Amino acid sequence: MPPKPVTAALLVIGDEILSGRTKDKNIGFAADFLTERGIDLREVRVVPDVIDEIVAALNTLRHRYSYVFTTGGIGPTHDDVTADAIGVAFGVPVAEDPRAIELLLQRIKREDLNAARRRMARVPAGAELVENSVSTAPGFRIGNVIVMAGVPVIMQAMLTAVAPSLETGPRTLAVSIAAGNIPEGAYAAALGTIAEHNPALSIGSYPSVVDGKFNNEIVVRGKDAEGVAAAVAAIEEVIAELRATGRDKYTIT
Amino acid sequence: MPPKPVTAALLVIGDEILSGRTKDKNIGFAADFLTERGIDLREVRVVPDVIDEIVAALNTLRHRYSYVFTTGGIGPTHDDVTADAIGVAFGVPVAEDPRAIELLLQRIKREDLNAARRRMARVPAGAELVENSVSTAPGFRIGNVIVMAGVPVIMQAMLTAVAPSLETGPRTLAVSIAAGNIPEGAYAAALGTIAEHNPALSIGSYPSVVDGKFNNEIVVRGKDAEGVAAAVAAIEEVIAELRATGRDKYTIT
Repeated sequence: MPPKPVTAALLVIGDEILSGRTKDKNIGFAADFLTERGIDLREVRVVPDVIDEIVAALNTLRHRYSYVFTTGGIGPTHDDVTADAIGVAFGVPVAEDPRAIELLLQRIKREDLNAARRRMARVPAGAELVENSVSTAPGFRIGNVIVMAGVPVIMQAMLTAVAPSLETGPRTLAVSIAAGNIPEGAYAAALGTIAEHNPALSIGSYPSVVDGKFNNEIVVRGKDAEGVAAAVAAIEEVIAELRATGRDKYTIT
Repeated sequence: MPPKPVTAALLVIGDEILSGRTKDKNIGFAADFLTERGIDLREVRVVPDVIDEIVAALNTLRHRYSYVFTTGGIGPTHDDVTADAIGVAFGVPVAEDPRAIELLLQRIKREDLNAARRRMARVPAGAELVENSVSTAPGFRIGNVIVMAGVPVIMQAMLTAVAPSLETGPRTLAVSIAAGNIPEGAYAAALGTIAEHNPALSIGSYPSVVDGKFNNEIVVRGKDAEGVAAAVAAIEEVIAELRATGRDKYTIT
């Protein structure tokens, strides 16, 4: 009986991602970061700065996955509504946290700590703070939900800070096999058979277009190193045979 | 009575995005493309290549928004399950489409059109094809769902091809105001008041960290040009006054 996987969802909060004004950089970083640590990212959602939307997504995701990580909406301005949304989702009040105020005072003079800035110290009752080594204004964690800033460098600092306290599961190993110019259609059948015989593995074929030509890569992912290695060997055999027999030269331009 | 907004969700399908192997480029492109055309992107979800997950997300999103755009999972390999998932979601059979076969034959010799490649011609009953000017294998549209490839250059070609047939609503105008090094906390209160007086607008403050220092930008978004212009003028006044009175020099490092 293998250990239970630890799963996660990422909830990206912000009108600016949906409008295209900001190009998200947090999804890719979180995917790499969590995967490397044995936390399987299973779903991502991007929602606007609207409390009802955040609450609905959060309450679905937090019951479905081991952890939910959120990014965005914890600054000092009116459009930063994440803390309030988390409070609604958990049914707890949101109040100024003296520990957070102390952190803000490391960067902001007391006379400059106006009402807007104090908003950055508001956290739902029962939350622990998550360190922000970039600009001190903390994120927080309540239950299985970790609330982080949207600015990538700060989000990355917060994710790194919280990581040691997270439960992790068996890491998913990934091995890539370059299929290069061999068309997917040439190896799809064999690959499908190998995938069928390895239900515990995730085997994917990923084309990209480089200079107008397809460049394909096959990726084998799984938690059992031997299983992954065996599937990789089988796939490499298929690729080698296609090349050896010239069947990698399909007339696709 | 302003015209009804046209809304959309984007459903990104693929294990490779969730594992971090592939960094999504389609969300940002679709957000810009749809926003420019008067289609408001309201939600994005990323789900794995798992039929049940795709079906659940699709059936939620297609009833909630004017359009749902999907990316990924329409190639020839076993992990390309999007067409089947759409069939399940709509409760219709998925079968090979002769029009799609003809398109594949523009690039693939008939003797090379094996079972795997024919998979790329499978579409749900009642679907229209969406042109793929890059590699001919088409996307498709059924009801308010537009199914596109995951490879960015192909996704972009498909989105461009389908765009003329889409209903559009009033465009959302966006104006950015550079706040530069003025800390958000210095203008948050005034900005909040302006936002409160303009409930039809989306006003956001977006910090970024450049060389370890915050660089802030305020964005006003809305469908009423006069309303946007008035809010922008009010915000510019706030920023100008902060600079004039030296209150842009908060001691934040």
